[in-house]
Amino acid sequence: MNATSVIENLANTARMAARTLAGSTSEARNQILLNIADELEKNLEAILEANQKDMADAKASGMNQSLQDRLLLTKARVESMANAARQITKLPDPLNKVLVERNLDNGLNLKQKTVPFGVVGMVYEARPNVTVDAAVILIKSGNAALLRGSSSAANSNKVLIEVMRRAFNKTDISPDVIQLVPSDDRSSVTALLTARGYVDLVIPRGSASLIRMVVDESTVPTIETGAGVCHVYVDKSADLEKAIPILINSKCNRPSTCNAAETLLVDKSIADKFLPIAFKALADANVVINTDKASKVIADKLGIATKLATEESWSTEYGTLEINVGQVDGVKNAIDHISKYGTKHTEAIVAEDKEAIEIFSNLNDCVAVMINTSTRFTDGEQMGFGAEIGISNQKLHARGPMGLEQMTTTTWIVSGNGQIRK
Amino acid sequence: MNATSVIENLANTARMAARTLAGSTSEARNQILLNIADELEKNLEAILEANQKDMADAKASGMNQSLQDRLLLTKARVESMANAARQITKLPDPLNKVLVERNLDNGLNLKQKTVPFGVVGMVYEARPNVTVDAAVILIKSGNAALLRGSSSAANSNKVLIEVMRRAFNKTDISPDVIQLVPSDDRSSVTALLTARGYVDLVIPRGSASLIRMVVDESTVPTIETGAGVCHVYVDKSADLEKAIPILINSKCNRPSTCNAAETLLVDKSIADKFLPIAFKALADANVVINTDKASKVIADKLGIATKLATEESWSTEYGTLEINVGQVDGVKNAIDHISKYGTKHTEAIVAEDKEAIEIFSNLNDCVAVMINTSTRFTDGEQMGFGAEIGISNQKLHARGPMGLEQMTTTTWIVSGNGQIRK
Repeated sequence: MNATSVIENLANTARMAARTLAGSTSEARNQILLNIADELEKNLEAILEANQKDMADAKASGMNQSLQDRLLLTKARVESMANAARQITKLPDPLNKVLVERNLDNGLNLKQKTVPFGVVGMVYEARPNVTVDAAVILIKSGNAALLRGSSSAANSNKVLIEVMRRAFNKTDISPDVIQLVPSDDRSSVTALLTARGYVDLVIPRGSASLIRMVVDESTVPTIETGAGVCHVYVDKSADLEKAIPILINSKCNRPSTCNAAETLLVDKSIADKFLPIAFKALADANVVINTDKASKVIADKLGIATKLATEESWSTEYGTLEINVGQVDGVKNAIDHISKYGTKHTEAIVAEDKEAIEIFSNLNDCVAVMINTSTRFTDGEQMGFGAEIGISNQKLHARGPMGLEQMTTTTWIVSGNGQIRK
Repeated sequence: MNATSVIENLANTARMAARTLAGSTSEARNQILLNIADELEKNLEAILEANQKDMADAKASGMNQSLQDRLLLTKARVESMANAARQITKLPDPLNKVLVERNLDNGLNLKQKTVPFGVVGMVYEARPNVTVDAAVILIKSGNAALLRGSSSAANSNKVLIEVMRRAFNKTDISPDVIQLVPSDDRSSVTALLTARGYVDLVIPRGSASLIRMVVDESTVPTIETGAGVCHVYVDKSADLEKAIPILINSKCNRPSTCNAAETLLVDKSIADKFLPIAFKALADANVVINTDKASKVIADKLGIATKLATEESWSTEYGTLEINVGQVDGVKNAIDHISKYGTKHTEAIVAEDKEAIEIFSNLNDCVAVMINTSTRFTDGEQMGFGAEIGISNQKLHARGPMGLEQMTTTTWIVSGNGQIRK
């Protein structure tokens, strides 16, 4: 059977199974999540054993250390997956919420209510925890899940899905709402991305190249996640006591994430005052520094090693302890720089001047504006979503962290008594 | 200059101009709309003259009558466009609405507010009124518009856009928020659909083939509109007095629209009672009838001409006075048929039985469920949206009629006092 038929069959099976979810109560869906948590803990050894096979293959193939770390499952990580599933049972049911109700002059009653998407595909890389995190969010929101993880995590994902499917025993919901998509080769991804009419939504999670491939190849609607070239702009009105911790936290707290900062922009009128302390703090945190010419002069005087930033530097998402530092002429010029090199993700301003803050908030076109706080707060858990399936970096449907509500669509229920249109 | 550069230049100009909209008051945007209405009426003759050129070309090229009718502008139609613009000024401002506000334990304040998409492309066919309708909705919602109409309406669209741009004289908003995309050949459509990073959203309006092309080629996010194979299901509990007007209105009120019905499904237990009156009413309304075998026997007895429905008939969007008639075994079987052949647009049930209505409402996966009323009510104006830029037939972002609110996205404004992430 070719990849297209495989996906169409999986999606059809998932769609029929999704009907058992669509008609289910919130309690029934929560029970599945609690069962999943229990099964994960009960089958800890089998999970770790499968993961060890993936780890051995990864080492043999020379996978880099940071990817290996993402691939690794430990007792603590499995327990954390189980506890996350339990936490999600405490969140409100996102389904059947009436968002709009109208009574029209002709007597028609209109209700717009939330309903599941139906069949949702996930395409993701190394981390096997996404298999569980995505499945529980999708089940709670009434969706069937087609899970296409990385081939490097194939053994881990297979066992995780088998274990999760046991959670449906003795319930009215079909285990077929969770489907493993083969990861032997790329053809299954292409088939998933073009299964229009079979799959309602595909969410990619992973590298910029994965996301670009999804955007280019997909005919199924997708939600773009990812790429973040985020900036910290320090205004001339900034409280510099706040600026340094915000800068260091934005860059260094977890540099591999999309909400980490890649560039510091400083109002040139305070460069002489601020940059020396900023450079020192960055150097102390082992951050590699790329600067514009004017700022390099300041660093050189202090004897702090820097490289001259190239045109490419400004649009690079380092994902490591490396940063660009540049001077701008006020808040509007900062926005010009951000518009040119940014990815519309998270932009921070450190300022006390209300007008500068207002201009920065209104003219930046991005997922989130951080005022006197770290870029790292663009995060579902930090922002009170309770659970996160990814951070949307597009404008359609959802922008920013996506939780349960974002995994629903709507339908209109129009009730009449024989009304016809004139 | 090649098509890609043309589109990128237009989009860049539009994006810079959109800043004058983003910072504008609701009053300023409404004033533009009132000016547009006035300019349309003032320049009536020039508009009709340009349209007459398009009509002459259309006749010479043998365009069919129904397309010619869509292309035609008259005094009444231009006045109607002007009045629609005036009506939209009375609708609430969709921008800067705070949708969510949260205060976190760490002292951060989160606000999710509505903001414009930025640069929105429209790709549409014959009707030149879309040029004005789309522009005024996009301006009111703070967006710049790249308008790519049909080459058959090139003269009309050119003049309409020139006239609309005059509305910006002596205002603080740049006329460059309205841009005409060349329609000489298809390359401008492809360039628009792949101008990722330059264009934030593309909305196609037109035939199924146009929409399919957009879905296949686009790397810019799009909202699929259109295709509707809508059903009217008459349950055994139906009040037949209601069923006939609902059926005839759904099919005949305006058969070319996406919310017109293409198929009548009848519970087989009432076929003998209902189909004779249904066939008679359809025949009286000059509707061509395709039926399944069982129903054909009933029609034959009455001497009403019918064709045997083929597998293809059930999934055809006729767009004309033609219908399929089939029998099903109860509401669940009706849903099976709809799932197989429908396009998830509008599905109507005529029934008095509450349980049948509930099953039909809960298990149908569609834009709108009509209970004892006509499929024709899936319409922005009818549903109280005030204005409509199209009907979304997808699940992402908006489902069903799209008005001003649906032309906005959101941004998070996170305010702190130096908070960093632990």
